[in-house]
Amino acid sequence: MAILLSTKANAMEAWREALLALDPSLEIRMFPEAGDPAEIEAAVVWTSHDMGELRRYPNLRLIVSMGAGVDHLLRPPGPPPGIPVARLVDERLTTGMTEWVLLNVLRFHRQDPEYRAQQAARVWEELPAPETSARRIGILGLGELGAASARALLALGFPVMGWSRRPKDVPGVEGFHGPEGLDAMLPRTDILVCLLPLTPETRGVINARSLALLPRGAFVINAARGGHAVQPDLLAALDSGQIAGAALDVFEPEPLPADSPFWGHPKVILTPHAASITIPRSAAPQVVENLRRAREGRPLLNLVDFSAGY
Amino acid sequence: MAILLSTKANAMEAWREALLALDPSLEIRMFPEAGDPAEIEAAVVWTSHDMGELRRYPNLRLIVSMGAGVDHLLRPPGPPPGIPVARLVDERLTTGMTEWVLLNVLRFHRQDPEYRAQQAARVWEELPAPETSARRIGILGLGELGAASARALLALGFPVMGWSRRPKDVPGVEGFHGPEGLDAMLPRTDILVCLLPLTPETRGVINARSLALLPRGAFVINAARGGHAVQPDLLAALDSGQIAGAALDVFEPEPLPADSPFWGHPKVILTPHAASITIPRSAAPQVVENLRRAREGRPLLNLVDFSAGY
Repeated sequence: MAILLSTKANAMEAWREALLALDPSLEIRMFPEAGDPAEIEAAVVWTSHDMGELRRYPNLRLIVSMGAGVDHLLRPPGPPPGIPVARLVDERLTTGMTEWVLLNVLRFHRQDPEYRAQQAARVWEELPAPETSARRIGILGLGELGAASARALLALGFPVMGWSRRPKDVPGVEGFHGPEGLDAMLPRTDILVCLLPLTPETRGVINARSLALLPRGAFVINAARGGHAVQPDLLAALDSGQIAGAALDVFEPEPLPADSPFWGHPKVILTPHAASITIPRSAAPQVVENLRRAREGRPLLNLVDFSAGY
Repeated sequence: MAILLSTKANAMEAWREALLALDPSLEIRMFPEAGDPAEIEAAVVWTSHDMGELRRYPNLRLIVSMGAGVDHLLRPPGPPPGIPVARLVDERLTTGMTEWVLLNVLRFHRQDPEYRAQQAARVWEELPAPETSARRIGILGLGELGAASARALLALGFPVMGWSRRPKDVPGVEGFHGPEGLDAMLPRTDILVCLLPLTPETRGVINARSLALLPRGAFVINAARGGHAVQPDLLAALDSGQIAGAALDVFEPEPLPADSPFWGHPKVILTPHAASITIPRSAAPQVVENLRRAREGRPLLNLVDFSAGY
């Protein structure tokens, strides 16, 4: 029996090595070279893999989705019925996301785009500096990623608010929930950070209405999913000056088309879905352990809860 | 009697308001409008103020230097003999510096310059990501500023080393001291952060020899003083690829001349001595308290230790 590996070209080999290092007896097939479909017992796939394709493997008993988000699994046709789907829960995913969020919060807080422009123009001028205690951060989503970023920002002295579907208590974070909670938090948010799972309820949460509720000159940071932001609404808010800057790691579709206005927008900081990094060496043990459990019919780790959508 | 205020034009008014808010009876003179020199009892001056000029005030009893560094006071002719010099010790100076150091460590750690270039070229490609635990930070100077940055970097999971003149114990930081300590730390340093006071011993510590001891492709962050770096040596190391990038807030001279090669260097991130921010509202109380103490002949706070040079 074999494991089907399907991920970005530049990550494929690292995954193969990490899995074999843990269990040299594993047979790894790198998509699209799947070999005999009947020999595939597990599929370890990046978020872009077509779930319909996985119906080709009659003896599949485990699907492992790379990355933290699982929204792609819920898109039709969805994973093959009856096949358990596990996701990766990797501390390094959280570390990487926290670093990316901190980098971009500090970038905007410390007026780095203005200083980059001044350097290009050879202008030596210190800009009036807002105090950290006056830069209010509003985080959408207080799951593992949102709570970790909240803690890191609190440690630096930022006032942090957080919005979640259900009430959540993160020490030091002023919590909001539900639609009215969002409307209460946004007018007090200087830097909005989206770390929500993408569900039917959260799709398009960053739209003309919510952007208008932010104070003029607020910043938007989206490291969750492209679907959280209504892209024309965000562009309009950037162009009108309502939003002073945006740091975006996620888009719809990905890769971002070369003709997208985000690429060249002077107020946009863009990264190619690179905020949170899956490091095979640290994630592979979960895959091997879940495969072992699947073979032995024991309960799997980190099973996706399709009812909640994450 | 009056206080002579001498600082950057865009900070002058904020200082005046902050001092008057604490003591409306104060008379503030804004340099160069000093009025009758005999009426000046205290001078609150930015680092660029000419110490020789202060000899014009016969009844001066207190000099307060803005900012954390005092190296400028030691340059000939030095402050008027017998006049006590206090410096500002402001928690916000430390906060601002820690933010600036974190921003630039994360900028280099997360390959932000490469991602900015990819955005400009509309290239969607995730770059191989080094692990945080493998990015070794070496901090020059473990004073208040260096220790604060060390703690913040440790909290994010970076391995942190620190070099100081005398042995210092900062929990979690691998300490080095003395010339041999520097030679031991540099070869293991991926990101070098300079937060030293500028003294005859530390002037030029970042030079061809020390830069060559760093691993090839290391980064240099200098938020201390321009005099810590031998500028031609740093430029040569950047051009040769020995140093992959530098974030520089300080230069010699300041303002940085418009024809300096640092302005347009593709591997240089430049800010105009803006890393650590003195906020008048938070620093003014020390000035008023020290003036009160000087008038009453009581011991002053935060006196400069000219023997140590900081």
